[in-house]
Amino acid sequence: MSRFTHLDESGAARMVDVASKDVSVRTARATGRVLLSAVAVDLLRAGDVPKGDALGVARIAGIMAAKRTPDLVPLCHPIALHGVTVDLTVVDEGVEIAATVRTADRTGVEMEALTSVTVAALALIDMVKAVDPEAVVTDVRVEEKTGGKTGVWRRGEVAGA
Amino acid sequence: MSRFTHLDESGAARMVDVASKDVSVRTARATGRVLLSAVAVDLLRAGDVPKGDALGVARIAGIMAAKRTPDLVPLCHPIALHGVTVDLTVVDEGVEIAATVRTADRTGVEMEALTSVTVAALALIDMVKAVDPEAVVTDVRVEEKTGGKTGVWRRGEVAGA
Amino acid sequence: MSRFTHLDESGAARMVDVASKDVSVRTARATGRVLLSAVAVDLLRAGDVPKGDALGVARIAGIMAAKRTPDLVPLCHPIALHGVTVDLTVVDEGVEIAATVRTADRTGVEMEALTSVTVAALALIDMVKAVDPEAVVTDVRVEEKTGGKTGVWRRGEVAGA
Amino acid sequence: MSRFTHLDESGAARMVDVASKDVSVRTARATGRVLLSAVAVDLLRAGDVPKGDALGVARIAGIMAAKRTPDLVPLCHPIALHGVTVDLTVVDEGVEIAATVRTADRTGVEMEALTSVTVAALALIDMVKAVDPEAVVTDVRVEEKTGGKTGVWRRGEVAGA
Amino acid sequence: MSRFTHLDESGAARMVDVASKDVSVRTARATGRVLLSAVAVDLLRAGDVPKGDALGVARIAGIMAAKRTPDLVPLCHPIALHGVTVDLTVVDEGVEIAATVRTADRTGVEMEALTSVTVAALALIDMVKAVDPEAVVTDVRVEEKTGGKTGVWRRGEVAGA
Amino acid sequence: MSRFTHLDESGAARMVDVASKDVSVRTARATGRVLLSAVAVDLLRAGDVPKGDALGVARIAGIMAAKRTPDLVPLCHPIALHGVTVDLTVVDEGVEIAATVRTADRTGVEMEALTSVTVAALALIDMVKAVDPEAVVTDVRVEEKTGGKTGVWRRGEVAGA
Repeated sequence: MSRFTHLDESGAARMVDVASKDVSVRTARATGRVLLSAVAVDLLRAGDVPKGDALGVARIAGIMAAKRTPDLVPLCHPIALHGVTVDLTVVDEGVEIAATVRTADRTGVEMEALTSVTVAALALIDMVKAVDPEAVVTDVRVEEKTGGKTGVWRRGEVAGA
Repeated sequence: MSRFTHLDESGAARMVDVASKDVSVRTARATGRVLLSAVAVDLLRAGDVPKGDALGVARIAGIMAAKRTPDLVPLCHPIALHGVTVDLTVVDEGVEIAATVRTADRTGVEMEALTSVTVAALALIDMVKAVDPEAVVTDVRVEEKTGGKTGVWRRGEVAGA
Repeated sequence: MSRFTHLDESGAARMVDVASKDVSVRTARATGRVLLSAVAVDLLRAGDVPKGDALGVARIAGIMAAKRTPDLVPLCHPIALHGVTVDLTVVDEGVEIAATVRTADRTGVEMEALTSVTVAALALIDMVKAVDPEAVVTDVRVEEKTGGKTGVWRRGEVAGA
Repeated sequence: MSRFTHLDESGAARMVDVASKDVSVRTARATGRVLLSAVAVDLLRAGDVPKGDALGVARIAGIMAAKRTPDLVPLCHPIALHGVTVDLTVVDEGVEIAATVRTADRTGVEMEALTSVTVAALALIDMVKAVDPEAVVTDVRVEEKTGGKTGVWRRGEVAGA
Repeated sequence: MSRFTHLDESGAARMVDVASKDVSVRTARATGRVLLSAVAVDLLRAGDVPKGDALGVARIAGIMAAKRTPDLVPLCHPIALHGVTVDLTVVDEGVEIAATVRTADRTGVEMEALTSVTVAALALIDMVKAVDPEAVVTDVRVEEKTGGKTGVWRRGEVAGA
Repeated sequence: MSRFTHLDESGAARMVDVASKDVSVRTARATGRVLLSAVAVDLLRAGDVPKGDALGVARIAGIMAAKRTPDLVPLCHPIALHGVTVDLTVVDEGVEIAATVRTADRTGVEMEALTSVTVAALALIDMVKAVDPEAVVTDVRVEEKTGGKTGVWRRGEVAGA
């Protein structure tokens, strides 16, 4: 009984009601990394990835994915998004990705920021997989949230919730 | 000039032509992990996550995401998928995720397997984020591919491509 | 001329303008049933449907479908959804489905509730069709609406609109 | 224990592997009905539904929905569709809907036919709901399947599967 | 270096932040034309296009496409749409298309109006391409915008922005 | 009666059955133009469009749109796509766009090529609309098709169909 959950009345999945939450400006920032071979890093730095502009494709994929979050994450609320930026930085071990999402709506946007980072990572891997089939997505996490009832939340400053 | 690529004729992104590739049975297996707090792990094991059946939701999100891969990854080919399984295992540090995708088509399905793992991870985080806002997605990678011209590929056995 | 409509200026389909309607909390509840064989009902009750957790899959499909309503129903407005619950109850004749949708926006959400019920029904049939190919979706209808200019509407209490 | 299933190893939902099935021409026909008030039926017959060409909108919604089936039904395979027809007939009690779907692929298309009928029904209700808020979708079911290993299947001729 | 842009810090694509913009009623109207052969125009006028009701299909495709704009245009904000009308007029040279989109949100809707016109045009071409493979979409442009900080903008009256 | 079609039995829209057509390699090439102000052209040539890499975004939008064609064009068949290229060339009057789509399936891909060109044009306009609100999409048309029963078709060489 350790590995699987049972379903009971309280366990039934549902989209939590947020109709009574305030409309306020909320932001979330998430980061992650794609670990790549030295060959792939060199190609990215030289702009010579055979399949095309890998960083540009990944950035746009990340932005577009933020908008698809409620299609992908079953219990996410469909909300307005008012700003998305995705930054990719080539480093010696691969590519660092950061996404910032802003809204003025009733729920936080940390899932949108995480989705943006992970899909940017997937798109990047797709661009370089012919030259580096061993790419790894790692360390994807929320760094900071602002807005809503809890105000500012920063990773590492809070113990539980 | 180190961080960004230039765009030239050869650098323009394109969906690579696979019309001449053979239709063959191809599989890919990817894995990843979600690192969680001890509290979240306990709730998962007890089936007491307040938002509902977290593992069940994540599994279905992962399966459905495999089908959305060409919508998310810009240069991925839209192909038939003939089988998808997503397994989630609760361990002391969090949840291990494995996805296996099968097709009988003209391109490999490693991007579908990676997408399946990452979206299952995102859905899991969404289910537990109220009790653990510091969840991390990590170690997402292709473990094995079969089919197509290259035959069997296993992580660690091959150096480059 | 009895079976088909003509198209004239007034008959041209259009998405009705609701920009001047008030933002208010609105809810809708819809119900429906899937009629199943005794064998299928027994498998559902025992949790032994070969294809997997049929009720859990149907519930999530119903929740996700509420979000896809404007993609499916041509003249539906794309709106924010703030809460969705889908309940499935196994009875002797099959499965009863109820969906409740909440928003704080400018239009009612009865189409979202109906879409949630019907897609939950379709997903359930997909799970059991190998053991019961004769499943029937029936009695899908709006039970109650609240919010907006008309206030509370309950099925059977109102004659026309 | 009567209402909810448990999850165990065999109960985990998965997309069944069909890669080894034959590519063959397969068809499915499904039907359903929307029960409407006499007022709504008269408006449909006269082509005077205020929101526009209700039958035309429903037909197109039904055809488009067939293509969205794998997005809606979690474990449905994404497959090619080679033909879809949706017929709507106004009768005294409302509208009868029939959808026929054809493919040349590895799985049956009964879910596509059912999805086509139900979404056509939803779209029809959306068109007439201002004049008939009590519309009901009913009797949605597969009538006939052809192709694949089982050959021709007709409702009522077969007992179980 | 004349044909392609370089990517630098300021050139990285991003979804511009509009969270601080006012919610106000905004409208946009766009027009365009599909040039067709005399044979195709005659079939449209007679309602005899073999593939079906071409104008009705194009109108619905245009309305639905307005809702898909943020899925198609990478940096478009996902916003509420509160009214969409698409008008098609058969003229001697083909079909004139006009789309009007209304919202009460934080950004303009000219991209939605343009998307509506162009997809209506594509759908129309799809309906007649068997009888006229040389159809051309032309003169697609914004005619008027209202709402937001700039107030009323009309094509030809303003020089720059 | 000149402007609108009637609906009768034969006029009902349907997705034409192509199950009996051969699987063969098919290609289509479409072109179009976006007319822009001299200021916008200069910014594109200098890579200084404030919103980001306009040509790169348009190219990716065009490629992704080819995959969305069956979601947008109601009666289009969902098919496999095996290659998509989108080329954008800045000229004095604006930007010329060409898209080539390849498949090995049962229907032609001219709608995919047209969709690719028009959505690339829309995305480009979205990138420059702050500096040029009067952009126009024009001359979007199929230039060449190959494959299938008709073999090679070139614009201007054939009179009718």
